[in-house]
Amino acid sequence: MSDKWLTSMKTEDPQSGYELAIKLSRMGVKYTQPSDEVRKKVRPAYAEDPTNLIASSQVIATNFQTIAAANNYWL
Amino acid sequence: MSDKWLTSMKTEDPQSGYELAIKLSRMGVKYTQPSDEVRKKVRPAYAEDPTNLIASSQVIATNFQTIAAANNYWL
Amino acid sequence: MSDKWLTSMKTEDPQSGYELAIKLSRMGVKYTQPSDEVRKKVRPAYAEDPTNLIASSQVIATNFQTIAAANNYWL
Amino acid sequence: MSDKWLTSMKTEDPQSGYELAIKLSRMGVKYTQPSDEVRKKVRPAYAEDPTNLIASSQVIATNFQTIAAANNYWL
Amino acid sequence: MSDKWLTSMKTEDPQSGYELAIKLSRMGVKYTQPSDEVRKKVRPAYAEDPTNLIASSQVIATNFQTIAAANNYWL
Amino acid sequence: MSDKWLTSMKTEDPQSGYELAIKLSRMGVKYTQPSDEVRKKVRPAYAEDPTNLIASSQVIATNFQTIAAANNYWL
Repeated sequence: MSDKWLTSMKTEDPQSGYELAIKLSRMGVKYTQPSDEVRKKVRPAYAEDPTNLIASSQVIATNFQTIAAANNYWL
Repeated sequence: MSDKWLTSMKTEDPQSGYELAIKLSRMGVKYTQPSDEVRKKVRPAYAEDPTNLIASSQVIATNFQTIAAANNYWL
Repeated sequence: MSDKWLTSMKTEDPQSGYELAIKLSRMGVKYTQPSDEVRKKVRPAYAEDPTNLIASSQVIATNFQTIAAANNYWL
Repeated sequence: MSDKWLTSMKTEDPQSGYELAIKLSRMGVKYTQPSDEVRKKVRPAYAEDPTNLIASSQVIATNFQTIAAANNYWL
Repeated sequence: MSDKWLTSMKTEDPQSGYELAIKLSRMGVKYTQPSDEVRKKVRPAYAEDPTNLIASSQVIATNFQTIAAANNYWL
Repeated sequence: MSDKWLTSMKTEDPQSGYELAIKLSRMGVKYTQPSDEVRKKVRPAYAEDPTNLIASSQVIATNFQTIAAANNYWL
């Protein structure tokens, strides 16, 4: 993946930080499965399955810990 | 999602912090599956399944770590 | 949930801290599934299933990290 | 559970710390399923199942993080 | 595994750090299953399965926490 | 387990630290299932199953966080 998608850990406020955590979580899926076509195909299977929805929220929570620390918790 | 739902990491006490962690956990699901209709449809499947209930508590625990650190553990 | 169940992160010793971590873990389930009746119904399914027992211990471990940090590891 | 099983987070060296992390992990299961009989019954199911063995090692790893921090990494 | 594949935790910027986290995550799989042939065989099974894709992103998120801390969050 | 297998958290460089994290992860399995015979029997089941391979990498990632912190990230 050659383009720049993560140039800074800093965000303006907690909510933008949470949204950056979502981006990181999605990029983890994208690097593992680079095919747009395959990802599109499996998307309904996880976005309508409760176990996968909770697991997605878990990945976001983990990335949010990192982003929050990088922003000194927006204090 | 255009509205503001996370303006501050600070909470008055640990319990409000725990409740904010719950909100973060739910938003992770909501961003992944934005359709209110689909989320409503799958909700019974996870709120009555023990594995999913425990997994939900795991996501909350992870977000609570972040909120607790942001509040310096309410010391 | 209107009553106060988490007024302080401080505990007298590590074991009480571990027990508070258990309480946090259970509250995560309770907020997700507020019905006492449903929780009672699914309880045997997770308390007798090894995967769910290990997952419960995982949630407790995560919450114990937070409680331990809040108590400066009872040093 | 009335008896004292966790009086200190301090251990002499990293290996004893790892063993304390194992104890914490088992206590998480015990508090969730207090019946010795039931735990004995399900034990083969998890100690011979690779997914459960890996999950057990995950719980231990999480508790070991806490114990290691409490011991300032035995530096 | 005799060759050097991890000589430094330092990366130039967050994105290279994220990519190093991906490398760490893959090495965890490689050490557990050293056979190139077997890994190649199982790859489609996880790169097309949503649960495994999310789990992969979870491992990356965990390793990214470590890399980010090692780089003082690229501040 | 009476022999000493973890005498120090310090390693020379990040890669040796990662390899120590692998050792910790395997010991978690070994303490839970001490029988060499049973572990040998279940090994193919997890080393050829993508879900278990990813879960193994997750345990390693968690232990690597601890080892990396103990080595001050090899700075």
